Amino acid sequence: MMSVTRVTTEALQQQIEAIFAAAGFNAAQGGAMARVLTAGERDHCKSHGIYRIEGTLRTAMAGKVNVSAEPVVAPDDGSALVRADAKGGFANAAFELALPALVEKARRLGMAALVINDCTHLAALWPEVEAITAHGLAAMVMCPSYATVAPTGGTKPFLGTNPFAFGWPRQDSDPYVFDFATSVAARGEVELHRRAGKQLPEGWALDAEGNPTTDPEAALQGAMLPFGGHKGSAISTMIELMAAIMIGDMTSPEVLDYLGTTTLAPRHGELILAFSPEAFARGRAGDPFARAEALFEAIIGQGARLPSQRRFRARAESAAEGISLTESETAQLERFLTQGFAAL
Amino acid sequence: MMSVTRVTTEALQQQIEAIFAAAGFNAAQGGAMARVLTAGERDHCKSHGIYRIEGTLRTAMAGKVNVSAEPVVAPDDGSALVRADAKGGFANAAFELALPALVEKARRLGMAALVINDCTHLAALWPEVEAITAHGLAAMVMCPSYATVAPTGGTKPFLGTNPFAFGWPRQDSDPYVFDFATSVAARGEVELHRRAGKQLPEGWALDAEGNPTTDPEAALQGAMLPFGGHKGSAISTMIELMAAIMIGDMTSPEVLDYLGTTTLAPRHGELILAFSPEAFARGRAGDPFARAEALFEAIIGQGARLPSQRRFRARAESAAEGISLTESETAQLERFLTQGFAAL
Repeated sequence: MMSVTRVTTEALQQQIEAIFAAAGFNAAQGGAMARVLTAGERDHCKSHGIYRIEGTLRTAMAGKVNVSAEPVVAPDDGSALVRADAKGGFANAAFELALPALVEKARRLGMAALVINDCTHLAALWPEVEAITAHGLAAMVMCPSYATVAPTGGTKPFLGTNPFAFGWPRQDSDPYVFDFATSVAARGEVELHRRAGKQLPEGWALDAEGNPTTDPEAALQGAMLPFGGHKGSAISTMIELMAAIMIGDMTSPEVLDYLGTTTLAPRHGELILAFSPEAFARGRAGDPFARAEALFEAIIGQGARLPSQRRFRARAESAAEGISLTESETAQLERFLTQGFAAL
Repeated sequence: MMSVTRVTTEALQQQIEAIFAAAGFNAAQGGAMARVLTAGERDHCKSHGIYRIEGTLRTAMAGKVNVSAEPVVAPDDGSALVRADAKGGFANAAFELALPALVEKARRLGMAALVINDCTHLAALWPEVEAITAHGLAAMVMCPSYATVAPTGGTKPFLGTNPFAFGWPRQDSDPYVFDFATSVAARGEVELHRRAGKQLPEGWALDAEGNPTTDPEAALQGAMLPFGGHKGSAISTMIELMAAIMIGDMTSPEVLDYLGTTTLAPRHGELILAFSPEAFARGRAGDPFARAEALFEAIIGQGARLPSQRRFRARAESAAEGISLTESETAQLERFLTQGFAAL
């Protein structure tokens, strides 16, 4: 039987922070990164947990992320936009710094956008979505990635897996949150199939010649496909336009050109929209939060599930029993802490 | 051989306006409605062309739309929101009235939202998207519909076909535009299958007991399915939250309750977001419009298509050769004009 250690969220947070500090990251970077990776582990979202530490350290070692970055938020220019310059660091520290300005502006104007530029991307979008819903605001978040997905009808990797995330605040329960790749599957899932020696389901990928394949190795050398056919392809293209070109940052093909590999964390911008349901619903009949609860109840009532429920159950379990780490995970964390880049 | 009449856009516009005037619609309503239906015919988008006149007249006859509505735009409250009250008329007149305020606000603040309340919905969303891109702005538009789609994992109609549309302005060519139902297919397509006596593809629909069906009749009495599985279902739910509950207007199940049928035009609100790429890209390297052109060229270059291209080709053809109407269509327009509700 595999030996499992249980740690608290706080203990894991400190352990990961220590790893990043030892690797040369400053406190702003390491703290924010540790918070999202700890949240991933806590929510049993293994593909966005401590699994990401290795790639993060590789990216730092390759000089493709600024470990000393102190992000800057531009002074209010009177528009609905908040601009955060991540200064080449990870997006997370920039997001944390800019969040109060985004919340204030969204409440005052009804909606606002946070643009994060010159950042390296780490982890999922739901931690950011949840940080916004915690303030009673709805959120829509998107960003490009590296070019690994063929547009529908195409043959070559061009679009990113371009995640699209949304959140709606709920007063007495976890928020309504979805966060998914606009590819059929996340690239991490293809990699997990490869490691497990399993074939992919049909419709996930093309090989290097642009033909359909179920071989994960061929898929990683070819292209993944968008979810939902031409509709998903269109949404993914919208994300390149809005969350790369519109905000003056790299598109997915530019990200891949810049890095030359998909094994390092991608460098690009991020677009975060926040909406105040109170401001939008002002003067109209009915409380939007109460009405949303009735909507959720009806969906659950017919046997469908709300997104992220598995994640929220895992979170409750972690709060009650701690976060489980296997012996090999514990050993790996220890190696990262004591050996730094030499552990890679 | 079927006899075909060719008419100009202007002539068809006037003919449809005359039909609506004869049916009692005021000039603001009839003019705006005729413009979108004419645009549908012009673009060979038959399901959003003169085919819709009949349902429009039925809706007026049932007293479920205010044919005399004069929409009102609320005075600027200093927020990023523009509020248009359609006064129970069709959304189109309200949109036309509010568009200048939306454009001005999006340019000034970088982005803005137009909320249309208390409107009846007619035609597609792309005419509105294109009206915004014509001003050099990007647009995202969404609205609910009547409850005809089961959430993924559910068994009963609850969500609407909830269209999601986006546009990006292009300087020397037609804009990048998509506009699609978040159901696998539009309800009109299921109806066209029924009329043609054709089975539906698998994965489109459930019967009244919640079991998968390919029978269009059973599907119309059961539920359609979202596109792209749980991801499309989540986006459709987001549209209920943002473009119904957040803006204080009816959700898809409420629309169906209100009308008691799907044969009349649905009453609900609409959410229209406009973004200024110039404002978002300010201070960043690269012209966003030039960069977008390079993106489109690369997509086309690998054999994929941009959305709406068939529609734009049809538009060019109509401009050169006129809009083709069959003998039966011409006769129907004549009947609507001379007999009004009696032609139904």
